[in-house]
Amino acid sequence: MTDPGRMPKWHEPKGDGPQLMLWNTLTRTKDVFKPMNGNLIKWYSCGPTVYDKSHMGHARTYISFDIMRRVLEQYFNYNVEYVMNITDIDDKIILKARREYLFKEFSTSPPDAGKVEAMIQAGIASHQQMITDAEEEAKKDIYRKAIAAAEGAIATLKSGDVPKAIQQAKDVLLIELDAKRDPERTFSNDVFAETSRHFEKLFFDDMEALGVGMPHVLTRVSEYVPEIEAYIQKIIENGYAYESNGSVYFDTVAFNNAENHIYGKIVPEAIGDLKSLAEGEGELSKSTRADAQGNIVSEKKSANDFVLWKASKPGEPVWQSRWGSGRPGWHIECSAMATDILGTLDIHTGGVDLKFPHHENEMAQSEAYLDNKQWVNYFLHSGHLEISGRKMSKSLKNFITIQEALETYTARQIRFVFLLHGWNATLDYSNDTMTQALTYERTFNEFFLSVKAVIREHSATLGAKVNPAAKELLSEFVSLREKVHEAMCNSMDTPTVMGLLRDMVNAANKHMKASGIPHSGVLRTVAVYITRMFRIFGAIQGDDNVIGFTSAEGAGANAEDIAMPYLEALAQFRDRVRAMVREGAGAKDLLQLCDELRDDVLPELGVRLEDRDDGKATVKLASREDLLREKEQKAALKEEQDRKKAEAKARAAEQARKKLEKGKVPPSELFKSETDKYSEFDERGVPTKDTAGEPLSKSALKKLEKAYTQQEKLHKDYLAAQSS
Amino acid sequence: MTDPGRMPKWHEPKGDGPQLMLWNTLTRTKDVFKPMNGNLIKWYSCGPTVYDKSHMGHARTYISFDIMRRVLEQYFNYNVEYVMNITDIDDKIILKARREYLFKEFSTSPPDAGKVEAMIQAGIASHQQMITDAEEEAKKDIYRKAIAAAEGAIATLKSGDVPKAIQQAKDVLLIELDAKRDPERTFSNDVFAETSRHFEKLFFDDMEALGVGMPHVLTRVSEYVPEIEAYIQKIIENGYAYESNGSVYFDTVAFNNAENHIYGKIVPEAIGDLKSLAEGEGELSKSTRADAQGNIVSEKKSANDFVLWKASKPGEPVWQSRWGSGRPGWHIECSAMATDILGTLDIHTGGVDLKFPHHENEMAQSEAYLDNKQWVNYFLHSGHLEISGRKMSKSLKNFITIQEALETYTARQIRFVFLLHGWNATLDYSNDTMTQALTYERTFNEFFLSVKAVIREHSATLGAKVNPAAKELLSEFVSLREKVHEAMCNSMDTPTVMGLLRDMVNAANKHMKASGIPHSGVLRTVAVYITRMFRIFGAIQGDDNVIGFTSAEGAGANAEDIAMPYLEALAQFRDRVRAMVREGAGAKDLLQLCDELRDDVLPELGVRLEDRDDGKATVKLASREDLLREKEQKAALKEEQDRKKAEAKARAAEQARKKLEKGKVPPSELFKSETDKYSEFDERGVPTKDTAGEPLSKSALKKLEKAYTQQEKLHKDYLAAQSS
Repeated sequence: MTDPGRMPKWHEPKGDGPQLMLWNTLTRTKDVFKPMNGNLIKWYSCGPTVYDKSHMGHARTYISFDIMRRVLEQYFNYNVEYVMNITDIDDKIILKARREYLFKEFSTSPPDAGKVEAMIQAGIASHQQMITDAEEEAKKDIYRKAIAAAEGAIATLKSGDVPKAIQQAKDVLLIELDAKRDPERTFSNDVFAETSRHFEKLFFDDMEALGVGMPHVLTRVSEYVPEIEAYIQKIIENGYAYESNGSVYFDTVAFNNAENHIYGKIVPEAIGDLKSLAEGEGELSKSTRADAQGNIVSEKKSANDFVLWKASKPGEPVWQSRWGSGRPGWHIECSAMATDILGTLDIHTGGVDLKFPHHENEMAQSEAYLDNKQWVNYFLHSGHLEISGRKMSKSLKNFITIQEALETYTARQIRFVFLLHGWNATLDYSNDTMTQALTYERTFNEFFLSVKAVIREHSATLGAKVNPAAKELLSEFVSLREKVHEAMCNSMDTPTVMGLLRDMVNAANKHMKASGIPHSGVLRTVAVYITRMFRIFGAIQGDDNVIGFTSAEGAGANAEDIAMPYLEALAQFRDRVRAMVREGAGAKDLLQLCDELRDDVLPELGVRLEDRDDGKATVKLASREDLLREKEQKAALKEEQDRKKAEAKARAAEQARKKLEKGKVPPSELFKSETDKYSEFDERGVPTKDTAGEPLSKSALKKLEKAYTQQEKLHKDYLAAQSS
Repeated sequence: MTDPGRMPKWHEPKGDGPQLMLWNTLTRTKDVFKPMNGNLIKWYSCGPTVYDKSHMGHARTYISFDIMRRVLEQYFNYNVEYVMNITDIDDKIILKARREYLFKEFSTSPPDAGKVEAMIQAGIASHQQMITDAEEEAKKDIYRKAIAAAEGAIATLKSGDVPKAIQQAKDVLLIELDAKRDPERTFSNDVFAETSRHFEKLFFDDMEALGVGMPHVLTRVSEYVPEIEAYIQKIIENGYAYESNGSVYFDTVAFNNAENHIYGKIVPEAIGDLKSLAEGEGELSKSTRADAQGNIVSEKKSANDFVLWKASKPGEPVWQSRWGSGRPGWHIECSAMATDILGTLDIHTGGVDLKFPHHENEMAQSEAYLDNKQWVNYFLHSGHLEISGRKMSKSLKNFITIQEALETYTARQIRFVFLLHGWNATLDYSNDTMTQALTYERTFNEFFLSVKAVIREHSATLGAKVNPAAKELLSEFVSLREKVHEAMCNSMDTPTVMGLLRDMVNAANKHMKASGIPHSGVLRTVAVYITRMFRIFGAIQGDDNVIGFTSAEGAGANAEDIAMPYLEALAQFRDRVRAMVREGAGAKDLLQLCDELRDDVLPELGVRLEDRDDGKATVKLASREDLLREKEQKAALKEEQDRKKAEAKARAAEQARKKLEKGKVPPSELFKSETDKYSEFDERGVPTKDTAGEPLSKSALKKLEKAYTQQEKLHKDYLAAQSS
């Protein structure tokens, strides 16, 4: 080979294609995306607090991140490690669970009607006070409705139907029973866990219905309490947190004064927003205590400090810690869990509402724990969701759960709306935007159907010469496809991508409508590309979670064709069991039938049944050919073993026969014929003298005696065999 | 919003992950791959010359490029425009088509036996000369065999079977008939097109069977003759070609002397290899002419010059051109077609055998046409194929067609061998390498089956906390996955990738075999990733060509998802049968189990089993809801029947009780108390006279006697019930 260095000059291409940029909350600009470690993206996403049904606000967040994740994994081909948490310890969950628990207790064994009425009346009074205290008119409305229902319940009580009255007054009772509960009463942690488990399941059911993929790793606060305690302790040791009255607080001043740290990287202008901070701490949290003089003083050193560990009061779930019994604060959960699985992060995502105080404080905590200068490189926040131009809220009567939305629109239609809005823009969920999404869907669907019809009709043009008309379409497509790539690189600008895909469809439709035979090959290229983009976006659910070599034969078959052979096998097996049982078959025959199912029937259907020691067989689908080969090999092996066994048996029989043959001669005759060796024998026939008449030596006699004794035994065996 | 410029300092990540490098024939090193235009790859691949069945050499080339194309499209996410040609004008095709045509003509209406024999004898004589002329022993062998068959044909002729004799002597006749044809005879271009179309179809059938994707654009020389003529004309105009005796030649000297051009960029050391050059020109080409003095002189200015346009002789297909009737040379086809569709190229691929003269000359032609300095940026050549360590050839009896290979191995197994060899390394197709491929396939398949079984059995651990064992597996996986990416970037080093995927399997198998419940979530991540890699490699055929919104509702449901619930039901039923039989259960219990399968288990799965009198149950698939409704209705009916039965039973019991109650009184006491009616009784206690002292009438006595007898019976029953 020639020395490569002496090859003619090669002109290196420039290669100045676009790079992926992401809108980064940390810089409020689009930054070129660079992962820390090769092709790996370490991504933590804030999951839901599970205390109620999921609504369209959740859809906004998790569909957006699902699209972004699919694009990073399947379009930009990063190796994504996507971790999400479930917040299953939280003041909202505590209130919800305890109130429901107390209400259930009250309604299951209610006191007498008088006491029920007194409780409802007290609830009405409290609600009247709540109306006075509430700032928002919408909230006042909710309380007014609760009072009206409770007043109806009082009327019901008069008619004597106590259970009905309790249900009618549920809204006021939920709050009143909790307020009037024995303040020292404790509840098992299970009371709260049951509620969070229930709503976690509903959340994942909704996500599945929306086509949102599962995270690679799911973390739950309730499973992470010891790690969280250790995490907090390290922050204390690093000098950025302090214990106060059984709670632990983050020291924002100490942190911000440290050389390498800044408090307020995400929303610097929000620092000092004590209302948001307090909301972040939770409804049940107080950060005050009585001092030695009985004055109420703050537990915090600074108003901006926030809680890491909350001392629990009776009626709240508790975990033991070095600071007494309590529970983790909200912000610390994410820091501890994200750091445990991923360390520092390439990407952190969450809804825009979480920017402050949650993400601000998470960032500070993690940098305090790691004592590094940047825990997250790209902080991405999904935009707001509005319903017909207004904030979604129960009081505005425009609150929509995911299940309600799915009653009206398909998961694909909902996803189309998301694709038609930037992930970090405000998304308006309204009739207009849904109509737009449905129009897009119809346009694409019509296009797909038309192309498939052209391919069926003009399959000969799949590989035909690309004539000028086809060339024009191809060139238009190639150019639009490059623009799609530019839009994808531009912080995943899916609205622009959707428009470009529609432009492709328009160009293809023009080609199909023009005179002349359409070029089905180029049309297929366009349609396959758009299909692939929709698959990447999750608008066409694909084989994201399919494992293994799927049997090619089964492709395209319908459910019935696939299921029937197995069901026939099941029915026939059952038929045989019944018939055999009725004929009085024994255990051995029935077990034999079970073996035949495993060894003969199912392998023919490509099914391997593996019996286990615990009596539960494992089912595996494999190729029929492989299983039949396995079976053949097993049979060949058995045949070989049988052959060897038979040979060994034959050898043993031959030896036994020879032995018997040898025993035919009575011991008295054994030496008689050996007159060439001996001349005299005793009465038993054992030689005594050799041919020379000399007495035999002692050793010779001993040998002869031994042979005689052996023959005595052999002869005895022979006689026994003869008589049997 | 705050001025983004006033945000706290953001630390930009380094982002020094690996870049894709490709082994480039033009530099004989690995170069960083940079496309010219954004994300687009303009790729031209040399297609087959279609004159025979495709063999494993074709598989070597096209499977390799298919893997590389899938990787560039689906792994590195480039927008690939993949153009391939079909060489359907070529000396090999001309010879094949004309010979077959003449043989068919001869065998369809043969002359008399004497003339047939003369032709065969002449063929034998020619072949004897060919043996003498041949250099390779292997070729001599082929000719010897043809002679032996022809001699057999002579014998057949004696027996009078002319058609059979012609078929027997086919090998010598094919050549002899062509040699002896009327030298002025012409043939329609269709004669040649029919042959090329036939073998083109076989080629694509083979490609489909191997899972090799169709190019986006397919070009055929026969459809490109006018463009090729114009292309040659431009090269002449640019000063790098000349017409000579009706043919056109490339002027290598003029080209190499031009400032911007170099002849010999690919294999500089091959320049002057006139034998290879002549083979490239084709068997039917001559580049000599008789000069005015009748001397044979070369048509070329330099021995290194090569043909662009060949003047056709009679018996060859012809197209009219400004230089007279003729046909394109081999090398010019690719230059003209590739430039027409793509212009300059990012990637040009072809088998290693095409380096010189084909690619060398293509490169020169295209740079001469475009007058640019580099037509192709990355020239990639697939490696050699050997059969058990030797060159594949018909004479070595190791020639394997693709169809033959597919009779022994599946397309996936063949592809595994390719993945286990570098695309530019020599691939040895042998029992050993196939065994290795089969072992890999089995290892992966067992792994997939095991993971699926774990997921079914431990679905609860899909979202469970990642415990230390699972964390170890996850971290091993993440690290191996980065190594996979490095190997992919390293000129698509698939053998290394396959080894790393196997390492992942080993780590996962270790996790599954260890004590403790395996983490099905992490295992699924590993298995889904490996499956995706195999889908990218084309080892699992996916939805590459699927168009449109496949039925959303059924989405994701593959054969396995459909079959598994039924198979689980079968396995569990069998488990129960075995357990019950072993516990010594009776017939009644086993039949009860069979009923439960029909009534409880299968309806839940949407299956109705209908037992028939002949003992064979009918299987019907229905909606689960309907079946459950049916079951409920049946249960309600049974409840109603049971209720009625119970009522009837209660009634009967009440009657019996009353009857017994009535029997308490002994018959002798029955009338005694009725002193208001009777005044005298006989010894049994039956009245004889009324209160008036009158004897009772006969009919009255009869009634009393009857009542007495009844009571006698009732009392007896009463006494019996009492004593029992």
